[in-house]
Amino acid sequence: MGIRDLTAAEITGILDTAENFREINTREIKKVPTLRGKTVINLFFENSTRTRTSFELAAKRLSADAVNISVASSSLSKGETIIDTALNLDAMQPDCIVVRHGSAGVPHQLAKISKAAVINAGDGANEHPTQALLDAMTIREHKGKIEGLNVAIIGDILHSRVARSNIHLLTKLGANVKVAGPGTLVPSEIEHIAENNLLAASNVEEAISGADVVMILRIQRERQDSAYFPTLREYAIHYGLTNERLNLAKHDAIVLHPGPMNRGIEIASEVADSSRSLILDQVKYGLAVRMAVLYLATGGSPTH
Amino acid sequence: MGIRDLTAAEITGILDTAENFREINTREIKKVPTLRGKTVINLFFENSTRTRTSFELAAKRLSADAVNISVASSSLSKGETIIDTALNLDAMQPDCIVVRHGSAGVPHQLAKISKAAVINAGDGANEHPTQALLDAMTIREHKGKIEGLNVAIIGDILHSRVARSNIHLLTKLGANVKVAGPGTLVPSEIEHIAENNLLAASNVEEAISGADVVMILRIQRERQDSAYFPTLREYAIHYGLTNERLNLAKHDAIVLHPGPMNRGIEIASEVADSSRSLILDQVKYGLAVRMAVLYLATGGSPTH
Amino acid sequence: MGIRDLTAAEITGILDTAENFREINTREIKKVPTLRGKTVINLFFENSTRTRTSFELAAKRLSADAVNISVASSSLSKGETIIDTALNLDAMQPDCIVVRHGSAGVPHQLAKISKAAVINAGDGANEHPTQALLDAMTIREHKGKIEGLNVAIIGDILHSRVARSNIHLLTKLGANVKVAGPGTLVPSEIEHIAENNLLAASNVEEAISGADVVMILRIQRERQDSAYFPTLREYAIHYGLTNERLNLAKHDAIVLHPGPMNRGIEIASEVADSSRSLILDQVKYGLAVRMAVLYLATGGSPTH
Repeated sequence: MGIRDLTAAEITGILDTAENFREINTREIKKVPTLRGKTVINLFFENSTRTRTSFELAAKRLSADAVNISVASSSLSKGETIIDTALNLDAMQPDCIVVRHGSAGVPHQLAKISKAAVINAGDGANEHPTQALLDAMTIREHKGKIEGLNVAIIGDILHSRVARSNIHLLTKLGANVKVAGPGTLVPSEIEHIAENNLLAASNVEEAISGADVVMILRIQRERQDSAYFPTLREYAIHYGLTNERLNLAKHDAIVLHPGPMNRGIEIASEVADSSRSLILDQVKYGLAVRMAVLYLATGGSPTH
Repeated sequence: MGIRDLTAAEITGILDTAENFREINTREIKKVPTLRGKTVINLFFENSTRTRTSFELAAKRLSADAVNISVASSSLSKGETIIDTALNLDAMQPDCIVVRHGSAGVPHQLAKISKAAVINAGDGANEHPTQALLDAMTIREHKGKIEGLNVAIIGDILHSRVARSNIHLLTKLGANVKVAGPGTLVPSEIEHIAENNLLAASNVEEAISGADVVMILRIQRERQDSAYFPTLREYAIHYGLTNERLNLAKHDAIVLHPGPMNRGIEIASEVADSSRSLILDQVKYGLAVRMAVLYLATGGSPTH
Repeated sequence: MGIRDLTAAEITGILDTAENFREINTREIKKVPTLRGKTVINLFFENSTRTRTSFELAAKRLSADAVNISVASSSLSKGETIIDTALNLDAMQPDCIVVRHGSAGVPHQLAKISKAAVINAGDGANEHPTQALLDAMTIREHKGKIEGLNVAIIGDILHSRVARSNIHLLTKLGANVKVAGPGTLVPSEIEHIAENNLLAASNVEEAISGADVVMILRIQRERQDSAYFPTLREYAIHYGLTNERLNLAKHDAIVLHPGPMNRGIEIASEVADSSRSLILDQVKYGLAVRMAVLYLATGGSPTH
């Protein structure tokens, strides 16, 4: 459902399990019979090539049967409620429903009525828990830990479920998080809180200074229906991650981005293509995280 | 192809076979090797989340390879005839083609030219045989029989392939069927026939009175291109199934709806969500029926 | 990538391998474990029912896991570059990416950056190598050889990747190729070359005279954005393959068409439905060719 509901120990349990699954994806035969005969429904009300493909491959590599349902071919266009759609799918006795929806809380509604395990693949501006888990896995692989690291999150904090899930996860695991972005896109709650390890920096440069991890959020051009900042060009100038800005971070700082990237806007190509950028590692670990989440959601035991 | 072509014994054979498959869907490992190495093509010229998903899951739980083709990605947009599309798919040597099309008779055309078994998943206003079979299975599970039951079918009888298939099936199996709906939507043939067990009631109340089963048809708002009734609101008032109307039926009457429901139009939420409504059971049995149909169409023997 | 890069021996190796796989598609159990645990991604930027389905079935009959990505559900609509999309998919560690794109060269770009094997399923007006291979397989099955045969290719030579791949393949394997079509649609390079076995005929009748094989190209009505010929009706009259024109070929000449056909335009129904037309054989052999290509691309050894 969300990182908010998980304890630090539970998060670590998922990451340890994902670590175990990671190796399968590098084998000659990338398939284990773990979920043979289980059914996973990918119910996507919003398009997402990478998340849907990642969950679909995760299911298949665990030998589950995966069925994709996208909103275009859904009965919703026939006036059915989301709840009725979900109840109908549930009556087909799947073991797991992976759901992405543009509105916050839809996965929670589904979970209440469904006998299948429900996995949140992104709900509105609320949470995107598997993204935060794969980000954490990427950080752990490269830094050996999360506790005590300085993490800068840059961009549209207000609307970003990626930011929200990451803030929950990183603060729970003891990182120090600084967020920055256009004033209109940083929630005022964060500006006014005085927690030990979450802070709204007054500008991007301050957030990045001394960071171990720089996490860049995607500017969601397709959702930018009102004017939070003047132009994309000005966004790039004031908030985009260039080599110059990245040099304010520690010399061995790593760069994360949830993708798809808007090159030249929130991230310069010189950064995206540098060895500091771990964007493709995130995708790779994403598959392992989703295998772990599917496995745990359908009754598997976490690795210790 | 259609219920019209089946004898009562054949229908019962399919239902008995479905009964056998039903249990698989409740297992921990929902998969049997029955159709391993067989290919099932779902060829959908009309969208239908539930029917396509039901057939896809049925194929996968029998270990068949399922391939989905929807009209949007079809070569038909390139000017090819349906027959040529079908011949081309057939040349790929599938074992079974499941077809839904907006025009009556398309599955029959395909069956003539195809070496694969063709299953009708709904053709225009003609038939929707697996829907009638799953309705019958639901009735049998809850009433123990079909013969002698009073069944009311309410709604747009004229355009409904669900109604047509159900009328064939129920009368063959010895139920007494009364249909009702707006005068413009009840075929005049039915009004004038004097069969023993099929009758056009003069109004909804008369059809429901004393019924064991009340089957509500979906108002196909997206197809309502001409004015058969004034407004949806008036439809709800005059024909919608409310608790009040349902109380005219036997005290243990059950309610069926093929989905997706228009709540508050053809069925009140108080009815849809009551224990008398077996709408989700229909979906559950639908999977078992489709497993049976795929199994029988590809050469399996019916259960006796 | 393309037929252009292959030697005659390599082409023959693929065809011999396809021959071996052909038999699998006629078995009761159409499935071998050859690619079990391998992942094949079908990345289609252009719609194509038959090519996508053919690759998907080929992958499944080899027990690979197949994932379909069509442009409609792709992140490209979110402003990501093709290269970034490909790198992201590659990070999920598929074994093979099958790509179709409207622009020439996209598969080559992908192959450069991808660790997975990349298979060209058609790139713009450049090549469609598996189509040429299945055409060659069809010819070999019916004529016993390719060397020395007279092959006429009729239609829009200029824009056709099918023609381009076939010209490379057939001339490499020693066939004599004559092309013909509207003057505006035959590339002037061909008109001026004086190779031993490739010739631009001055009209359709000359190309067909004495042919062993008549290959008809599809008029791509949906791409016909400028006026290369006056009307479809005139195209049919001057270039369409009728029985009368076909009678100029050898008495045992065979007819090929890559599909989908525009009946009554580039090919008359009397020809399409005659025993000389091997259009459905092409589809059948296409599956075997794609199984061979997937097998070889993921490390299998060719048959000798």
